[in-house]
Order: sequence, then C-alpha cells, then structure tokens
Amino acid sequence: MQIDAVNGESQTQHSHNLVASDRVEGTPVRRANGEKIGTIQRLMIDKFSGNVAYAVLSFGGFLGMGQKHAPIPWARLKYDPMLGAYHLELTDQELNRAPATAAGEEFDWGDRSREIDIHNYYRVPPYWGAY
Amino acid sequence: MQIDAVNGESQTQHSHNLVASDRVEGTPVRRANGEKIGTIQRLMIDKFSGNVAYAVLSFGGFLGMGQKHAPIPWARLKYDPMLGAYHLELTDQELNRAPATAAGEEFDWGDRSREIDIHNYYRVPPYWGAY
Repeated sequence: MQIDAVNGESQTQHSHNLVASDRVEGTPVRRANGEKIGTIQRLMIDKFSGNVAYAVLSFGGFLGMGQKHAPIPWARLKYDPMLGAYHLELTDQELNRAPATAAGEEFDWGDRSREIDIHNYYRVPPYWGAY
Repeated sequence: MQIDAVNGESQTQHSHNLVASDRVEGTPVRRANGEKIGTIQRLMIDKFSGNVAYAVLSFGGFLGMGQKHAPIPWARLKYDPMLGAYHLELTDQELNRAPATAAGEEFDWGDRSREIDIHNYYRVPPYWGAY
C-alpha cells in the first residue's frame, strides 16, 4: 500500500490530494514546538454537502479517564509533514476553554448555536456558509 | 452516545446533518431489494477542499481472499434507513466492470484520467469541478 502524506509521503511515490479517513483517525495534533495536544478521534461529515465539518480532537485525561473531545473545524487544521501531525497552535488554557464534551458524551451537533460557538472560537467561517 | 442516522436514528433523538467517519466505515452497501453488495472500507477526502471524494467499497472474495476495492463517488451513495445501508443499484456484472483494485493494492489516486473514468462510470460530476 502506498504511504500517504499523512504518514510522511516519500518523494519517490506518487503524490495525490486525497487522504483516507482511517489514516486521519489516530493522527496526532501538535503545536509548532512539537508538543502533542491530542489525537484525531474521528471526522464529522456533513451528509448533504459531503464536506468534512470537524475533526474531533481527543485530549487530556490520564489512563483513559477524564479525556475530552473537542470538535475542531476542519479548515483550521493543517497537516505538517515535519511534525508528522496536524498543526494547531493552542495553549493548554485555550484548549481547556474550547467547546468540548467528556469523551463518552456526544456533542450536541443538532444545536447550530453551539456550532457557531465553535467557529467563533477558532475564527474560521462556518462549513455551511454564512450565518 | 447518541445513535446516528447511519445506524438507525430513532425519532426521539436529536437529528442532525453530521455523520462520523468511523460510523460510515463498515456500513453495508445494498441494492434496493436488500442484497448486500459490500461494505464501506474508508472514505477518501480531498485535503484541499475538505470534500469527501469517494467511499471505498470492499466487495467480492471469500474468507478474505480475492476481495476488491472500488472507489464510489460520494455523491452516488445515499444512506437508506430502511435498508440500514447505503443504497447502490449495481448488478454483479456492473460491479465487476467498475474501476477497482485488489484489496491489498492502492488505487492510483494521482492519475486524474483514472478518476475521470470513475466519474464517467457512475455518471456523476467530478468532486473537483468540471474537466
């Protein structure tokens, strides 16, 4: 199987613009200095447009306890081959204030006002267009 | 965790337009008569636009041998709650003629002419716009 950009694509291999969902899942998220913030748990996809709306970041906790899930607008994450991770410049304090749920709970995706909060927090335009 | 539409959303639960990538992975694909064609293996996502380009359909084979992977344009698949599956009306013959690779091989995503073949085969406009 060809190595994808997410896991460090070599120059000799065929480069392409597609990435597999099961490669993104489990990919670390790091600050520019290499510190690991967390891991991508899954992607949330808009059924109608087929757009990736969020990457759900799993972070915090210890031995699986107290872990949180924060939906990050997909537009806000950039894969950095040098880091071997998605790059997100967020301090621990900012991360703790970010819209999130406990790992076992489902985010209230049906509540658009909560989705607007997320996009305001990360200062990116919403995936569904203007609000 | 809230049950998502992919696994049969109950009417009492909060409905929303997002579906998790790890729920789509493993979801069956069936004909209208209920016959199972195969299973969604993964999604292929356009890194730049954030659009889901393909669902990779795993089909055929026996005991893991001879299985094939066919990229289906995401626009071509519709989730059908009655079927509990994505609906795709394709005969066995059509399926065997569809652009596909052996399960262990990577599709040549970098070759746009092969991607055009896929979209012509399924008669849907390409995810990257006009060609």
